[in-house]
Formats: sequence, structure tokens, C-alpha cells
Amino acid sequence: MLRLSIVAIVAALAVTSAGADELRDQAAAIFKPVPSTIPATKDNVITKDKIELGKALFFDPRLSASGVFSCNSCHNLATGGDDNLETSIGHGWQKGPRNAPTVLNSVFNEAQFWDGRAEDLKAQAKGPVQAGVEMANTPGQVETTLKSMPQYVEWFQAAFPKDKSPVTFDNMAKAIEAFEATLLTPAPFDKYLNGDDAALSAEQKKGLALFIDKGCAGCHGGINVGGQGYYPFGVVEKPGAEVLPANDKGRFAVTKTADDQYVFRAAPLRNVALTAPYFHSGKVWDLHQAVAIMGSSQLGTELKPDEINSIVAFLNSLTGEVPRIEYPVLPAETAKTPRPTEEVIKK
Amino acid sequence: MLRLSIVAIVAALAVTSAGADELRDQAAAIFKPVPSTIPATKDNVITKDKIELGKALFFDPRLSASGVFSCNSCHNLATGGDDNLETSIGHGWQKGPRNAPTVLNSVFNEAQFWDGRAEDLKAQAKGPVQAGVEMANTPGQVETTLKSMPQYVEWFQAAFPKDKSPVTFDNMAKAIEAFEATLLTPAPFDKYLNGDDAALSAEQKKGLALFIDKGCAGCHGGINVGGQGYYPFGVVEKPGAEVLPANDKGRFAVTKTADDQYVFRAAPLRNVALTAPYFHSGKVWDLHQAVAIMGSSQLGTELKPDEINSIVAFLNSLTGEVPRIEYPVLPAETAKTPRPTEEVIKK
Repeated sequence: MLRLSIVAIVAALAVTSAGADELRDQAAAIFKPVPSTIPATKDNVITKDKIELGKALFFDPRLSASGVFSCNSCHNLATGGDDNLETSIGHGWQKGPRNAPTVLNSVFNEAQFWDGRAEDLKAQAKGPVQAGVEMANTPGQVETTLKSMPQYVEWFQAAFPKDKSPVTFDNMAKAIEAFEATLLTPAPFDKYLNGDDAALSAEQKKGLALFIDKGCAGCHGGINVGGQGYYPFGVVEKPGAEVLPANDKGRFAVTKTADDQYVFRAAPLRNVALTAPYFHSGKVWDLHQAVAIMGSSQLGTELKPDEINSIVAFLNSLTGEVPRIEYPVLPAETAKTPRPTEEVIKK
Repeated sequence: MLRLSIVAIVAALAVTSAGADELRDQAAAIFKPVPSTIPATKDNVITKDKIELGKALFFDPRLSASGVFSCNSCHNLATGGDDNLETSIGHGWQKGPRNAPTVLNSVFNEAQFWDGRAEDLKAQAKGPVQAGVEMANTPGQVETTLKSMPQYVEWFQAAFPKDKSPVTFDNMAKAIEAFEATLLTPAPFDKYLNGDDAALSAEQKKGLALFIDKGCAGCHGGINVGGQGYYPFGVVEKPGAEVLPANDKGRFAVTKTADDQYVFRAAPLRNVALTAPYFHSGKVWDLHQAVAIMGSSQLGTELKPDEINSIVAFLNSLTGEVPRIEYPVLPAETAKTPRPTEEVIKK
């Protein structure tokens, strides 16, 4: 009797262990942990000088026409790399058209913006600086601003030592990309993928299994648990117009292909617990509700409350550690620095 | 002959040395160096926990109704502790009435705001949070916001261990004051006051002597080279309405005393080279011009260009080293956190 019990216990342990290994093997085939080193970026060698310059630029409100907004205003490193607003508020108190995505780990996205219209972070960085509803500036004005401060000229020279005239809008974008490539946030889920079974709770593992079995991982895979591939929002059932406004046709604006109507890049889910509100419209504040909507609209599944809870528990394991960043001291303006203007120029 | 030369050289050295000592003695009687330790604040014991909480609050945009503005938006530690705007832009893109003063070393001011209406930094901190044109929030809403995030509740408990309900608007202000009291920027002028004659150039010493001899130091003395005492702007000759707008009567609004019309607190001049534009109206961008205006309006003196250059050189010696600050990672919102609103409520 005793012997039989021991056999049963051993068998049960073996199953649990096999189950644990199996889940991690499954996960390892779909996801990837954040690497321990800064990834390489295309056509942009990352150096310490470039990262430091990029950090200064990222935090510098003088990249905006008004002198009010920096990259960090909408991609705030203190609050999950975004601004926790439905859609961002920019120049002249105008509201942007879509929810600001997190800058954290964004280097791992296949392309940038909700519709993937920028192929990488250096292309992305030029967008908001020029957008009339965001920073409302021009490349020429940005270059004049940066050239007016000798300290910036020195920093650009150090970051781009081969360039004869290093202070350019393109190099601004490259430096910002270099800094952003350092914004990696290793999380409990990475510990788990790297072999530490204790890094996830039983509930989180249940959530992970559901995330795979229900089909979420079909679109949300890779390092960023998303950020790869384009999918129609409402592939099975369109969500209401409140969540999916009719006037924003997503990737259609980029490709002009009928099939791309209401198509968006799968949202990267790292730090998703910190980046409410959700979806490109920013209309959903509760992560449970967001998961439920994804179930019905993308998978045709009415997820049960306890399934949703488990999936949210798993998603919480994607909340990572933000790198320590010393707040920069920026170069002082000079008489040549263009003055800020709060004026809104209607086009 | 040789002997005579040596005597002459020794005599010359003695004169130079006596001159140098004399200037420093004069300066030491008027100014004081930034201390090497954080100053005590009235009714607010400064602890490490309080400083850390205060830092988080200082950088938290959720103290504003819109979720867009933090204390750091207008008192940006990256740009001299102010925003480099004529007057700040706040809620609903409204412009504030006066130029934002630097938060750096502000703990040494006799009182806060251009008109001294707040007796200290904890009283000051409550103003912008509630001002309709700035953060447009209410004490109750701020408390609800902070109480909704368990991490903040813990931080308040650690910072105010004797309080039963530590998450209050008053304690928010005290924590911010504690953080701000750490924002000291020792500068070359402090080295000089502390005995290092080589810390100032010959031109800067000339400027310091002029600053004393011409009478600038009559109002701009103490640790902050200003920030003490109230004086009419235009004591000798009123500057133009562009610089001194008729509708802003300064301290008169606080005291309702006729003598206080167009009276302002003497501006603290530490880091003045970083805090253009100048005066309460923020209408003067060039420090040389600001010095010239002060000469004519306050001293009845038409300063010569080379005198102005020397005084500006001296003022540059007040640019100090900002303490290293790690950018905070703030608590995440919860379902109970009030949602941001960009709506402007006209009263």
C-alpha cells in the first residue's frame, strides 16, 4: 500500500514535471526572451556617445515648436513608456488620432506605429516631431535649434565622428533610435523562458497555457509578444464603433489595399499592465475587458471570467524592469536658438 | 637693481593678493555659498523616504487633471529648473500670467512666487496643482488619484510613519518640498567664496566688483544672489509696458498696499544664464539686455557695454552643477484611478 502510494506520487510528480517542461517548450517555440545585450539596429551602429546624445534628444522639449513637448512627454519612461491617455495631447491642445504605444522594447517590433508605416525607430522618430498635432516642428527648425547650442554640436560630433556636418535631422533620429534600443525591460516571463519555473505563479502558467491554446499567441508571439504581423481588428466579429471608430481604417492608409481596411499591427504586449488605455483608439481602460474583446473579435471565443483572470495574470508577468536612467542636463539655449511658439498654424 | 626689482615684484604681488582678498571679503559679507548639506525646512523633517516620494510626485503628470503636466513640465530639471518659455503653457493650452521661476536652490528664497505669496516650498507646491491655467486639479482629486495606487500608499506610509492617513494633499506638498530642498547647485562662485581664487576669471572678478559697486548686490545678495526682499520694478525709471505690463501689479495683489504696486521679490540669480527669458513677464531673452534694464530701472545707471559683459561673465559663474537624479519609475494606475480629462472648465 505504502509502495503503491509512493509510485503514485512519483508518477504524479513526473507528470507535473513533464507538464511544466512541455509548457515551457511550447512557450519557447512561440516567444523569445529579451536579450541580455542591446540589439543591433539597421544602418545605425550603436555607440555610447550616440546613446547619450539620443537620451538628451529624447528628453528635450525644444524639439517641439512650442518648447513644451519632448519624446518623453508621450512616451514617458516613468509610466510604462507611454502617456496613459486615450490619445496624446499635443501642440495647441490638439488630440492625436491614435493611442501612443510604449517605447519600451519597441526596437523589437517589426515596424513602428499602429499601422507599421515606419520601418524602424529612426524613421518613426521623425514623425511626431513634424506632426502638426504633436510637436509641430520642421526638420530645418530642429537643425537650427540644435546647431545653436555648442554643446549639442560637440555631442553630435562625438556620436557621428565621420560626418562633416553631423547635426542633421537624420542623425537626430539615429541617436534617438540608439537610445531607444537600450530600453529593454526583462520581466518574470523572461526568467521563465530562461529556465526558472518558479518565476511564474501557477495562475500565470495557467494563463500562459490559455494564451497559447485559445490562439492569442497566433498573433502575439516573438520577443515582444506581438509587434509582428498585421491583422484585421475584428477578424471574427467587429467590436463596436466606440472601440473601432469607422474613420480610422488602419493600415489601409499605408498600403491603399482594400484587404488592409481596419488592419493594424498586432500590439506588443510587454508591460501591457502599465499601458492602459488599450487599442489604437485608447477607449478600453480595463485589461480584463481588453482580453475579452480580443477573445470575441479575433478568436470568436467568449472567454470565461476565470480564463480572463488567468490570462491577465500571465500578462502581468510581462511587466519588466525599466533600466536606470539618469535624467539628463541639457545644453543651454543661446541667442541663436529659435524661440518657442505656441501658435497653431492651421493648414 | 636686481634687488630693487625683486622688492617691486613682491610689492606688486602683495597688492594683487590684498586686492583679491579684499574683493572676496566684500563678497563674503554680501553673499553666502551653497551649503554642503540639505537645509532644514520648517515643520517638515527631511528623510530619505520623503525625498524619494517627493521626487516621484515631482515627476508625476497624474497630479494634473489632464495627465499631461507634472511639476517638472514647467520646472524642468534638464533645462535650468524652468521651462524657457515667456510664461508657462498649461491646461487647455492656456498661458500662465508670469514666467516660471527655477526650482533649483529655491529652498533658499525668503518666500515663493514672484510676489512672495507662498511662505515656503510646501505652500508653493499646492498652487500650480490647483491653478486652472496650470494643472487644473483639486486636492480631493489628487488624493483620490494617489490613494488609488497601492505603491503610492506604501511610499506615503514610509515618508510619514506617524500619520494614520498619510496620503493627503498637505503631505504631497511636504514631500515635494523635501525633494526640492535637495536641488542645490554648487557653482564656481561658491568655490570662490569658499577660498579658491582661481575659480573665477579676471573678467568674472571684475564683474563681481561691478555687481557690488554699482549697487546690484543691494537687492541681489544672500545664498541665492536674490530671492530675498521686495522691491519696486522701476524704482528709478519704469521700464516699458512690454517688460512691465500695467495689469500685473505684483505684490499689491498679496498685500493690497498701495506701496506694493509693481513690487516683486528680487529674482534669485543662481543659474540665471540657463533661465531665459527674464523678468516676471518673460519678455527679455538676452541676459545682457536684462542687466542693462536693471541698471537703468533700478539703479539709474546707464551701464557701459564692457561693464555689462563683465557682469554677465560674473553671472555665468553662478551656473552650478545639478545633482544627479535617477528618473523615477512611477506606480501604475488601477481601476480606481480617476481618468485624465483634457476638458477646460471655465469659471
